[in-house]
Amino acid sequence: MSMVNHNFSRLAGSYLFARMKDELDRFKSAHPEVDVIRLGIGDVTRPLVPSVISALHRAADEMGAPAAFRGYGPEQGYQFLREAAVRREYAPYGADISPDEVFISDGAKCDVGNIQELFSTDARVAICDPVYPVYLDSNVMAGRLDNVVYLPCRESNGFAPEFPAGKVDVIYLCSPNNPTGAVLDRAMLTRWVDYARTTGAVLLYDSAYSAYIRDPGIPHTIYEIPGAREVAIEFKSFSKTAGFTGLRCAFAVVPKSLERDGVNLNQLWFRRQCTKFNGVAYIVQRAAEAVYSDAGWREVNAVIDYYMENAEIIRTGLEKNGFTVYGGKNAPYIWWKLPHGADSFGFAKTLLEKTGIVGTPGVGFGSCGEGYFRLTAFGEKSRTVEAVRRIAEAKF
Amino acid sequence: MSMVNHNFSRLAGSYLFARMKDELDRFKSAHPEVDVIRLGIGDVTRPLVPSVISALHRAADEMGAPAAFRGYGPEQGYQFLREAAVRREYAPYGADISPDEVFISDGAKCDVGNIQELFSTDARVAICDPVYPVYLDSNVMAGRLDNVVYLPCRESNGFAPEFPAGKVDVIYLCSPNNPTGAVLDRAMLTRWVDYARTTGAVLLYDSAYSAYIRDPGIPHTIYEIPGAREVAIEFKSFSKTAGFTGLRCAFAVVPKSLERDGVNLNQLWFRRQCTKFNGVAYIVQRAAEAVYSDAGWREVNAVIDYYMENAEIIRTGLEKNGFTVYGGKNAPYIWWKLPHGADSFGFAKTLLEKTGIVGTPGVGFGSCGEGYFRLTAFGEKSRTVEAVRRIAEAKF
Repeated sequence: MSMVNHNFSRLAGSYLFARMKDELDRFKSAHPEVDVIRLGIGDVTRPLVPSVISALHRAADEMGAPAAFRGYGPEQGYQFLREAAVRREYAPYGADISPDEVFISDGAKCDVGNIQELFSTDARVAICDPVYPVYLDSNVMAGRLDNVVYLPCRESNGFAPEFPAGKVDVIYLCSPNNPTGAVLDRAMLTRWVDYARTTGAVLLYDSAYSAYIRDPGIPHTIYEIPGAREVAIEFKSFSKTAGFTGLRCAFAVVPKSLERDGVNLNQLWFRRQCTKFNGVAYIVQRAAEAVYSDAGWREVNAVIDYYMENAEIIRTGLEKNGFTVYGGKNAPYIWWKLPHGADSFGFAKTLLEKTGIVGTPGVGFGSCGEGYFRLTAFGEKSRTVEAVRRIAEAKF
Repeated sequence: MSMVNHNFSRLAGSYLFARMKDELDRFKSAHPEVDVIRLGIGDVTRPLVPSVISALHRAADEMGAPAAFRGYGPEQGYQFLREAAVRREYAPYGADISPDEVFISDGAKCDVGNIQELFSTDARVAICDPVYPVYLDSNVMAGRLDNVVYLPCRESNGFAPEFPAGKVDVIYLCSPNNPTGAVLDRAMLTRWVDYARTTGAVLLYDSAYSAYIRDPGIPHTIYEIPGAREVAIEFKSFSKTAGFTGLRCAFAVVPKSLERDGVNLNQLWFRRQCTKFNGVAYIVQRAAEAVYSDAGWREVNAVIDYYMENAEIIRTGLEKNGFTVYGGKNAPYIWWKLPHGADSFGFAKTLLEKTGIVGTPGVGFGSCGEGYFRLTAFGEKSRTVEAVRRIAEAKF
């Protein structure tokens, strides 16, 4: 018998972004003269907006004042933020979500990594390919590698997953998608909700990029779909909505009407969070609340517009140079179909050497990502324009 | 086959502190006139110190400035904080710990809840009784309830655990102890380290309250003990050291020399954190760094002194009234041996009704805690004095 969790040894290589960072470090020390442009990891570059900064200062002052100081907060988040989230993210879309179904956390990465704890280690899990690596890796670490069913997302199906062939218990969906930038429209989401209602599967709907949706017909939350409250858990994040990648705030929505095997999943997640989490910093929750104020919402949406202009610059720039690209219309990710051959990790190195641009090889997101390359719209505009110019000049 | 993780159903009742909160809510709505004194949950009451508040403001300004803004940080924490932790918490005690063995997190509760993921679900786990509930609950949720060996900590053994009867793989130790306030001295810790070296067990050493140690002979870190680097993971927290319960920062130390079954646990925890965690807010890490500055360290130690005066007030006050109490000398917890009978939950209600004081029933920490009651030193001084007065007057 082994005392160590050997499921870790079944994880594929090291974490994708860490590997790319090593590659970059090597390149930079070999070529210190190159002006590198980073369109790889999906980190934002614009500073936090003024409403958020003001809220941070106000809350910091409270924490230094005897009468206003706050110690432990509720593990599920302060009521003021749970209510603000409902007002801004659900009520406007007619989605019937109440504050006690909103669980504030320190990141969607943590939430989507931890949510699998609610399910049996025998549960069968469907995961799109290509996909954000955390869905798969967190299940591998829990011993479910042999229970994973992959849902290929290819050019031929518009990068939209099809129903799994056999019975599954849990299905991860992500829209707007990381890495392909594809979105699930109302008809597709309705089919998934109906499918889950029929089969009893639970949908884990990662909607961290919903603020980037531009087409008015695309749902901003899965709870716009009738019946979703009985089948879906949703994840949202302030990281990309409001530039909180370095501030850490997100939330999961677990409806009280979601039950399986006679167990209420809202109560189960409540218990999980009470036991293994101690809430998000008060000052960060006040900052997140400020995102949802009228001024804050205007400010963060101006930043999102800025990034979406970058997406347009990359998308149209690459198309103009004869490349085939997907995404970038309702998502900050451009999914670039590679011009020559399928070796996306090799292409990452070539691109870095020829142009000084860092991107993410599609294969890092799964085998169906091979032959593609992810560029992100989170850079500075002038740098994004420069990146497109370099790519055009390099003539791949 | 079940799709839900039914191990949750094996958890004992609801989480202790949540149950006490319900009890208190009921009492307060029934008796709105009573001036309640909270000596129950171990939350601090003093505001954050000036050095920390200044650091928060400075870092918030950086986050609003294009050139200084920081997005994703390293999952393991910024180097500046990992180095500061080593300088303040390890180097002064001659403990050989390097910054890349320090993993910054958003709380010791998360760390001690998550650390069990490194071990097989078959691993045999030794847990003290009474104990901070997270050790047990996180293992129950992972399916190890039947693998738990309890180490009784009673008056008869000075509340110090003895070696388990059979072979175990993992042993949770906590010193200064929550809830008993007992400490493990150098001789005891040496015996545990030697035991672990002989048997191959891993020690999970929760040292969140080390800043409260007053006796010069008591080790501040397990790495003062020769050989500990090969057997122990240590947890520390800014919550009680610097009043960060509402700011959220802590760290785990996983030595690079800790290996089991041919697996390096430092690398395993690195991989776990990279996959399921995205680091602590930059501004919070700057605040934590300020705790370790010379000014910050003086300021937080003045607050700790304040709390330890409270501990002295409670301890001596109760003793003067004929009660037997433990702890309170190197720990912010007083472990009160109940005067009549063993029903600590019943006593909690009686105490609340007769005196308006909230405390924590010992049984909530395990069956060996029955007959005891935990009071904490984290209140305001005048309220602590008043609490002791009320207890004396109530004549239990």
